[in-house]
Amino acid sequence: MNRIITIGREFGSGGREFGRRLSEKLEFAYYDQEIIHEISKRTSLSEQYIQAIVEHQPSFSFPIHIGRSFYPSVNPAFEQTMTIYQQQARIITEMAAKSDCVIVGRCADYILKEYKPFRIFVYADMESKIKRCREKGPEEENLSDKALRQKISAIDKKRAKYYAFYTGHAWGDKLNFDLCINTTQTVIKEIVPAIAKLFESI
Amino acid sequence: MNRIITIGREFGSGGREFGRRLSEKLEFAYYDQEIIHEISKRTSLSEQYIQAIVEHQPSFSFPIHIGRSFYPSVNPAFEQTMTIYQQQARIITEMAAKSDCVIVGRCADYILKEYKPFRIFVYADMESKIKRCREKGPEEENLSDKALRQKISAIDKKRAKYYAFYTGHAWGDKLNFDLCINTTQTVIKEIVPAIAKLFESI
Repeated sequence: MNRIITIGREFGSGGREFGRRLSEKLEFAYYDQEIIHEISKRTSLSEQYIQAIVEHQPSFSFPIHIGRSFYPSVNPAFEQTMTIYQQQARIITEMAAKSDCVIVGRCADYILKEYKPFRIFVYADMESKIKRCREKGPEEENLSDKALRQKISAIDKKRAKYYAFYTGHAWGDKLNFDLCINTTQTVIKEIVPAIAKLFESI
Repeated sequence: MNRIITIGREFGSGGREFGRRLSEKLEFAYYDQEIIHEISKRTSLSEQYIQAIVEHQPSFSFPIHIGRSFYPSVNPAFEQTMTIYQQQARIITEMAAKSDCVIVGRCADYILKEYKPFRIFVYADMESKIKRCREKGPEEENLSDKALRQKISAIDKKRAKYYAFYTGHAWGDKLNFDLCINTTQTVIKEIVPAIAKLFESI
């Protein structure tokens, strides 16, 4: 069976960089944005729209009760969100069947649970996440510390809601992971060789 | 500065074995029962009594209000518990100053926070903890699964209370640790080399 590593991560914790570096070190395939690209290809919906659905507007933020009143069968927005989630689950399962891989986010730990993935969660304290966000890109350049803190909290809150909706589990609960790595004051590339070594034995 | 690793652990998770093996692999000193032995030497109290105080009967389980009614100054039981805790904190600090070391339990992560220890928490699911307890020793041989489950929960509850009382933090909260390792279905000795490798870089 292929070796599968899933990475859950708090926004700004460096989890994506960790996943990418780990996949390079292990020479495993790496899937992140590739999943969105593939959904887009199969559904003819834009990557931007899919991204918004899977990360920023999970279905339960739609007023389902209105759907129930006005549409006798289903709420079309809810329907589309579910379709995208199912498509995503199918693609993730296909990717996991293809080769050893590292998959970032997207409830992959839950979707692939029958394949016994090694589930990593990457987190950090708020100050460290703010620092990482500032180093990462120009997008956050003009935000005050307070605004950036709010942005980080809001994104993680959405991730938690999304994860809870599809899996029924609390996001980031350590019992759902094999390893939880705190990247506060950590240089990501320095810890990757040690974590990679775990896969010599597991 | 010496490299210090502290290990918090759920009962039955294999955390003590992990700490011992990690110290052997890294050639660090290992402190666990040695701390009780040293408190005993300094206080002339029996090791058994100290063990009961620091693990099974934390001070706040004493009826402090009775102490307040009958003793105008302090409750002697509470006083002795605090003395033992302070003695323990002093010994742990001395040990950490002496050489690189691994310290298991005893709020060492909190006591040594100014020394920036690498803080590991070892945990597992209940089935796995029951299995490990049964493999470990004869003590649990005659307990039913239900009784053993209750014993494990009771010990961890006491650890959580003890930790919360002295540190003000929630026991096992991943934000208070650098690495949380789930040992469910894990052979402890197989993961030690990878974790040891972390200390080549940190």
